Order: sequence, then structure tokens, then C-alpha cells
Amino acid sequence: MTQNNNPQFNFKILKRSSKSRARLGKITTPHGVIDTPSFIFCATKASIKGVTTQQVEEAGTQIILSNTYHLMLQPGEEIVKNAGKLHKFMNWDKPMLTDSGGFQIFSLGHGSVAQEIKGRRFTSEGRNKTLLKITEEGAIFRAYTDGRKHLLTPERSIQVQQALGADLIVVLDECTPFHVSKHYTRKSMEMSHRWGQRSFDEFTRTNDGSQALYGIIQGGVYEDLRKESCDFVNSLPFFGHAIGGSLGENKDQMKEVVDYSAKLLDERRPIHLLGIGGISDIFYGVKAGIDTFDCVHPTRLARHGGALAKRKQSSDKEHINLRNSQYRIDTTPIESDCNCHTCNNYSKSYLHHLLKAQELIALTLISIHNIAFMNRLLSAIRGAIQTDSLDDLQKEWLL
Amino acid sequence: MTQNNNPQFNFKILKRSSKSRARLGKITTPHGVIDTPSFIFCATKASIKGVTTQQVEEAGTQIILSNTYHLMLQPGEEIVKNAGKLHKFMNWDKPMLTDSGGFQIFSLGHGSVAQEIKGRRFTSEGRNKTLLKITEEGAIFRAYTDGRKHLLTPERSIQVQQALGADLIVVLDECTPFHVSKHYTRKSMEMSHRWGQRSFDEFTRTNDGSQALYGIIQGGVYEDLRKESCDFVNSLPFFGHAIGGSLGENKDQMKEVVDYSAKLLDERRPIHLLGIGGISDIFYGVKAGIDTFDCVHPTRLARHGGALAKRKQSSDKEHINLRNSQYRIDTTPIESDCNCHTCNNYSKSYLHHLLKAQELIALTLISIHNIAFMNRLLSAIRGAIQTDSLDDLQKEWLL
Repeated sequence: MTQNNNPQFNFKILKRSSKSRARLGKITTPHGVIDTPSFIFCATKASIKGVTTQQVEEAGTQIILSNTYHLMLQPGEEIVKNAGKLHKFMNWDKPMLTDSGGFQIFSLGHGSVAQEIKGRRFTSEGRNKTLLKITEEGAIFRAYTDGRKHLLTPERSIQVQQALGADLIVVLDECTPFHVSKHYTRKSMEMSHRWGQRSFDEFTRTNDGSQALYGIIQGGVYEDLRKESCDFVNSLPFFGHAIGGSLGENKDQMKEVVDYSAKLLDERRPIHLLGIGGISDIFYGVKAGIDTFDCVHPTRLARHGGALAKRKQSSDKEHINLRNSQYRIDTTPIESDCNCHTCNNYSKSYLHHLLKAQELIALTLISIHNIAFMNRLLSAIRGAIQTDSLDDLQKEWLL
Repeated sequence: MTQNNNPQFNFKILKRSSKSRARLGKITTPHGVIDTPSFIFCATKASIKGVTTQQVEEAGTQIILSNTYHLMLQPGEEIVKNAGKLHKFMNWDKPMLTDSGGFQIFSLGHGSVAQEIKGRRFTSEGRNKTLLKITEEGAIFRAYTDGRKHLLTPERSIQVQQALGADLIVVLDECTPFHVSKHYTRKSMEMSHRWGQRSFDEFTRTNDGSQALYGIIQGGVYEDLRKESCDFVNSLPFFGHAIGGSLGENKDQMKEVVDYSAKLLDERRPIHLLGIGGISDIFYGVKAGIDTFDCVHPTRLARHGGALAKRKQSSDKEHINLRNSQYRIDTTPIESDCNCHTCNNYSKSYLHHLLKAQELIALTLISIHNIAFMNRLLSAIRGAIQTDSLDDLQKEWLL
């Protein structure tokens, strides 16, 4: 079954902003609807760290993702499949996405690609030897779990993602870091296109209608390459598109790359921006036409005591650090206008105590807030697209 | 206000077993009623590790306890008091108990008293230098948090517990380890009685009616000393009694000590057994006349991957270890007849995966089960006392 005749999936655009390419949409999947723009939370190893799926849902979450790389190694996709696939295995009955597995393989192999995508400097300490070889066939890597060799091909990535059973799945691509040359970026992109075609072919051959496939745009920070990559994904009947690869060395370059890439994509398909999740990033992404975002930031931040909060003055960060001693006697919630379980029931003083006392539940409670915060932000963004007042909303959230 | 004229607290015995001293009761506190026999879960530092108070309550919990020693050091009782006392600080609106702080001071000071109470061998490696001196006035110790010196007197223990604001509070005693002589045990017990009187006097002087005080029985494994100690606590109008100190070097001796101690206590007052929580221990305790139990066992076990489960054959342990590879592909819940959030939604295969993947939520989900298990056990025990069928129930749960 190909993408275009699958009755279980569709993407509808309900409203367009008059001032930017922001759009209000609805992605329908077999596990329900995702109102877009939306944030996708990372349940890397089939668990959002420290938070039950019930808590994730109660915090207003529409969709989560898991990582194919981690799950193919532990517990292995066959275990997940035999347990009734990912939704049943992890007790999540709403939409899910899995990635292709490529990002982690290349991230571990090249050094920290994640850092580079966000424009941070490449450090050779980040390298390790888990990525053994990249060939036309696929990527050979050593499992971080037991050191065994694996070959991840585009076909295998699709097969693993089919066994896992998420609603939205993604083609295998090579994720190049920022420091490589334009020549390498072109060669890599061209191979990613061939891998994209092979992923698409494998998907088309075996899909039973319960999954939909996203193509990935590569091309690094080179506008001409990004255009070629957009043309490629537009040419195949993917359900959606994801902007991947290096987005440059700073926020301005990232904005530019996202902007010219999103503009060139088939506007009838949902667009996902991989690995980006800061508050200001979300605003520019939405304005560039991005429909979904994912990032470990909200939950990783929580594990370090950081709680997302609307700025009170323009010099504030996008979060407060609850470890700071100023919160020792602060009996107010993280945000007085937040309606999450944490803000309804717990003070900053208690959360500060839990962090000082190294109590695990601190991470749970702050994660719940950060998840609810992102969902509240995206819900407000959807409201503002409806009323064409996105700039006002951005001023309110970022001062 | 003394104990006997406090309208907010009472203990009623609803039914007595015809075959043992087991009794069905009801402890009324300002934060609600505790049906007894009941288990008290340990929220040591104002948090049950890895579980929100909502999850604790949904698992059927009636009462939790926090440790004065930990809270007086972090965050400090004044912080808790200013945040509206412990119930509000930690978002728990049902009955609570705090201990006196003594157990941890002496446990850290003497080596592992906790192990000895349960009859395990004394090891000198267990010792450390945080207990600096025990005098008639109180115990001088170094804080594990910042190394500062503290003096805990009976009066200070009561003052701290008043600032924390639990419903049920406990006198300060010296908790002697198993290896000390009868001579030391007697001297220590006599001082504990003087500390008990001072605790009682301080409590009587300052109590506003929102708390009730438990006296502690010491005397180690010596029946004559235990009798003296029971006579002492019976002579003061304590609301309840707690059996403390060393219970011997093995289960048989523990049974004996609990049995002859409980028999000598004023039967109109609730009796708590400190630090005991195995399934078979609960059965013999209930039969000896114990009304409440506490132990870190159910939640500590969960953090090591152990899930409480009814035995399937008599050679089974009282729990299963979910790390065992046999659970890798086991898609059934921990217990098919358990109605907890974990058993309703998750398989052993998923929990095994979470433990292998070192996902924090494993500890949460197994703790929820273990808490629900203990509450189910105690509820079944209450039912069996009602129908005078405790022996049958014990056979069902322990084969």
C-alpha cells in the first residue's frame, strides 16, 4: 500500500497565517489525531525518563517518539513485536513516531552530531569507534550494549520500524556533522536519497496500512543541496517530510536553513523538524511552516533541575534552575498560571528540597511540568495561528 | 493537652480473633482514619522514592511516615513548617507518622542497627563516626549532609516533630544493637525511659491537639527487661506504643520478643512494630497483636527489581526478581490477580526491559506494585480477622 491511498492517514491544513508560513493542521493516524503545530516527546528506550505514560498523557501530550537504534539493541524489535508492538508494550495508545536508527549510529560514530546540528563546536573527544563503516549498502556499527556488530540498511531500518509498529516512521539517511566539506555533504546526501528510495520501496512492499513514512531532507547548510533534497522528497509520495542533517553553526544559520528548506517542500505534507525544541526555536520553526518538533530538551533539562518557565524579564533564560538556593523557601509553584499536576500540588521549595536530597521524584515532577509547559506552548501557538496573532504570543512568551 | 482527652484521636477495636491476639481496629487522626492492621510506607525524606503521593494513594495507602533525622538536616524543620508542615509540603492529605530521629543517629553510629534488629551479623565495617557521644542529655552527632555537629535531645525531637506536623509522633529512645551486653541494654533502656518521660513532658507542655504520641518499648532480647519497659510505657498516658530495639538474631527469637512484648502492653492502645515488613513477619506480628508495621522493604526491593508476589510453590521467595532473563519475553503482568496501575498496564517483559535499559520508571512501576501488594495483603488480613480465618489466609499467601 502506498502513501496516497491509505485511508488511515491524512494531513489537513485548517488555517494559514497571513503573516508567515505558519499553519494550523491535523494529522490523522490509526492511534488518533495530532493537532499541529505539535511537540513530540522523546521516549528513547520506550519510556519517557521518570514519567509514566499516564502522566505523559495527563500533561496534554498528543504524540511521543521512540528510537529505533536503542530498541533494536534492547530489548530487540522481536520482543516488542511479540508483546503486541510498541503501543501495547509501553502502554501508550496515542500516535507515535520512530526514527530510522541512523541518527544515533552516526551521532556515536562521528562524534556528537546532536551538538553540531545546533551549531556547537566539534570536539574529537566526542568520537568513538561504534560506527565501523558506512557503505552503499548501509552502516556497520558495534552495539553499545554488548559490542556485537550490526548492519543497518534502509531495508532493515524499515523492517525494524514495522516490527516496532509506530504510526509514523522515517527513512534511513546518513546524518552528516557540520564540519564535513560540501563535497562530502553532497556525496552523503546523494547516498541518503538512494537510501530514501530503498526505504520507500521496502515500505511500499510490506506496509499493511498501519504506518506512514516520512522522507528526510539532507544537504547541510548549502541552499543548492537543500533544494535538490527537497526536490527528491517531493518526487516520492511520502506522507510527510522531516528536515534533518546539520542546520549550521549558530541560530541565525539554523533559521536560514529551516526557512529555505521548508519553503521548498510540498506544502500538502506535514513537515517535521528533527531535534529542535527551544521556545524561540519553536516560534521561528512554526513561522517557517514546521508542523511538528521533537527534542530531548524538556525532559533532559528536568533531570538537571531545570523547569521551563515564561520569562519575567528579557534577560531571563527559557527556564529556571530549581537547584538555586533562592527557591529553598519559595512556597509558590514553578508557574502560578500552569495547571499541571506539579504546579497544582507542589512548591518550588519542595522541588528544591527533593533535588538537594537526591530524590528521584524531583525528576518526575519537573518532567511533568516541562511536558505540560511544551504542550501549553504549542496549544497557545495553535490558538494564535487561529486568530493570526502569533507575533503577540511570541512577545508574551519570550518578552 | 494530654493524650486521653484529645478528641481528634482515638483507637477502637472492632473485632478480636478467637485463635490469636489479632485484632481489627480503627485509628482516628485529624487526617483521617487508618483501618488496622495496616502497613506504613517510608517517605524517608518527605518522598516515597520514585512514586508521587497521588500514585501512593491510588495504590490504596492509608498512612506513610517520614524520618525526623533526615528532615531536620535537609531541608530543616523550619522550612517544612513555613511551607505549611509536612502534609502540605509533600502533598499528602492522609495520616502520617514521624519517628524520633534516634534510629538513624544510632544506626549510623553503632553500625547497621537495621540489620541487627533483623538478627543479621554485626560487622565493624558498618561503623562510622557520625555518632559522637551519647549522654543523659541526648545524642551528639555529625550531620551526614554537611558534617556540622547537632545535639538531639528528647525535647528537641518533640519540637522538630511538632514543626513537621505528622499526626503520630514518637518519643526519643536509644536504639541499641544486638551485640551489646544485657548490662548495657538495661542501662540504655533505663535512659530511654527517662528520655520517654522527658519526651512525654515536652509533648504535654506544647501539644495543640493535632498530634498524638507513641511511647517505645526497649529491652532487647531480655524478657524481664521488655516487661519493665512495657510497664513503663503502660504507666504513662501515651496514645500508642511502638516495639523498638533489637528483636534478636533470627526469626524465631524475633517472634518470641514480639510475642511476649505485645502481650504485656495496654491492649486499649494501638501497637506499632518498628522496621519489620516481610510477608511472614506481618502474619506473625498480626497474630501477636500488632496493629501497624513499617519497613523500607517494599520500596527498596522495587529499586533492585524485586516485585512482591504470592508464592506459587513453597520454595519460592516472597518476591520475584524482574531482572531474571526468564521475564524477557513474559508478556503477563507481575500478578494476574493484582489490580494495581502496573499490573493493569504493563508486562513483566516491559519491566524487565526497563531494568536492563536502566530506565528510572522501572523503579516507579515496581514500587507502585509493591505498595499495592502490601495494601492488598493488609486488607486481606483485615478481612480474615473479620471472618476469623487468618490461618487459611496465611496458607494462601505463603503456601
